[in-house]
Amino acid sequence: MVEISRRGLMFVLSSPSGAGKTTLSRMLLETDPGVIMSVSATTRRPRPGEQEGKDYYFVSTEDFGLMVNRGELLEHAKVFGNYYGTPKAPVEQALQVGQDVLFDIDWQGTQQLEENARADLVRVFILPPSTMELERRLRARAQDSDDVVASRMAKASEEMSHWAEYDYVIVNNDIDSSFAKLQAILTAERCKRERQTGLSDFAKQLREGL
Amino acid sequence: MVEISRRGLMFVLSSPSGAGKTTLSRMLLETDPGVIMSVSATTRRPRPGEQEGKDYYFVSTEDFGLMVNRGELLEHAKVFGNYYGTPKAPVEQALQVGQDVLFDIDWQGTQQLEENARADLVRVFILPPSTMELERRLRARAQDSDDVVASRMAKASEEMSHWAEYDYVIVNNDIDSSFAKLQAILTAERCKRERQTGLSDFAKQLREGL
Repeated sequence: MVEISRRGLMFVLSSPSGAGKTTLSRMLLETDPGVIMSVSATTRRPRPGEQEGKDYYFVSTEDFGLMVNRGELLEHAKVFGNYYGTPKAPVEQALQVGQDVLFDIDWQGTQQLEENARADLVRVFILPPSTMELERRLRARAQDSDDVVASRMAKASEEMSHWAEYDYVIVNNDIDSSFAKLQAILTAERCKRERQTGLSDFAKQLREGL
Repeated sequence: MVEISRRGLMFVLSSPSGAGKTTLSRMLLETDPGVIMSVSATTRRPRPGEQEGKDYYFVSTEDFGLMVNRGELLEHAKVFGNYYGTPKAPVEQALQVGQDVLFDIDWQGTQQLEENARADLVRVFILPPSTMELERRLRARAQDSDDVVASRMAKASEEMSHWAEYDYVIVNNDIDSSFAKLQAILTAERCKRERQTGLSDFAKQLREGL
């Protein structure tokens, strides 16, 4: 049984909130030991139970600034006054041993990844099956005022306007069929010639044996 | 249940003779009604039982020459004194209605398809797990002289030297696992953004509804 060594890939899932991205990410992490979740650095305080290096790398604002200036982050953003970013080194280490890294980020983070790591990037956008269904999920989730729901829907609409920047698009009609498609995309991308770093030597051996 | 209309793709399987390509093609055609086999035009005489338009389009050498000159073939080649080629029109008709077309061609035909239809092309190369296994299969198949076996092996070696021109590479360790990979590649490629021709209107509707 020949196993060709390969470089891991960066698997980005984006979607408007409520389209199923979080459920699909969880299913992937639970069923595929070859996939790990990307861990972000953040300047916000740890919440009870959150573990350093597992949930986040917790850093000071000063250290975060240094990481940005040194080019040590693949992408970063400021959200509600706190900084979040993806450290490059742990991702690179994972990719080198053939581990795939899952990213649950929005279109802005994805654009930064594209600038910094295009060859390793596989971008999947999840669309909801209908506006009604998306609105239903956003309302069910937000036990909030109409204002908050309206602001979530505006954000969902903005996120959705970026679907065309992704490599693959899945309309999430039902979660099992969408998950099967997601698994197929991952399996296929692992078969891509340029990710199989051991192929060149293997093909050479085959031909020399003939 | 939303179905996004999509353009079909041209699915090319190449491999050295004996690596499993024919078996994998047959499995795909038997299990996936979305895939049809490309039908070639040829100048050779029909053999008993061969049907016009199903096995081949049988044409005169003169007509074949006209098809070449008019640019009506996606690829063509001369093999043992006969001409073979892929007519463009039936493939284009299939792609337009979202049907995928399977091609069982060698690296030379694949290079011509790349020139004429890159955007629709998905190229998969199948490698044998070992030289020994390939040689065993070539010998088992050819109840022939050592000369014939040697010539087949030289041809296999030449074909194998072109693996790096393909999008995906599968090492055929066992047929079921290789078939699962082939199905995953097809499923993934159908999810590619640019093939889903109905996405733009659908995404627009979604956003306008919010």
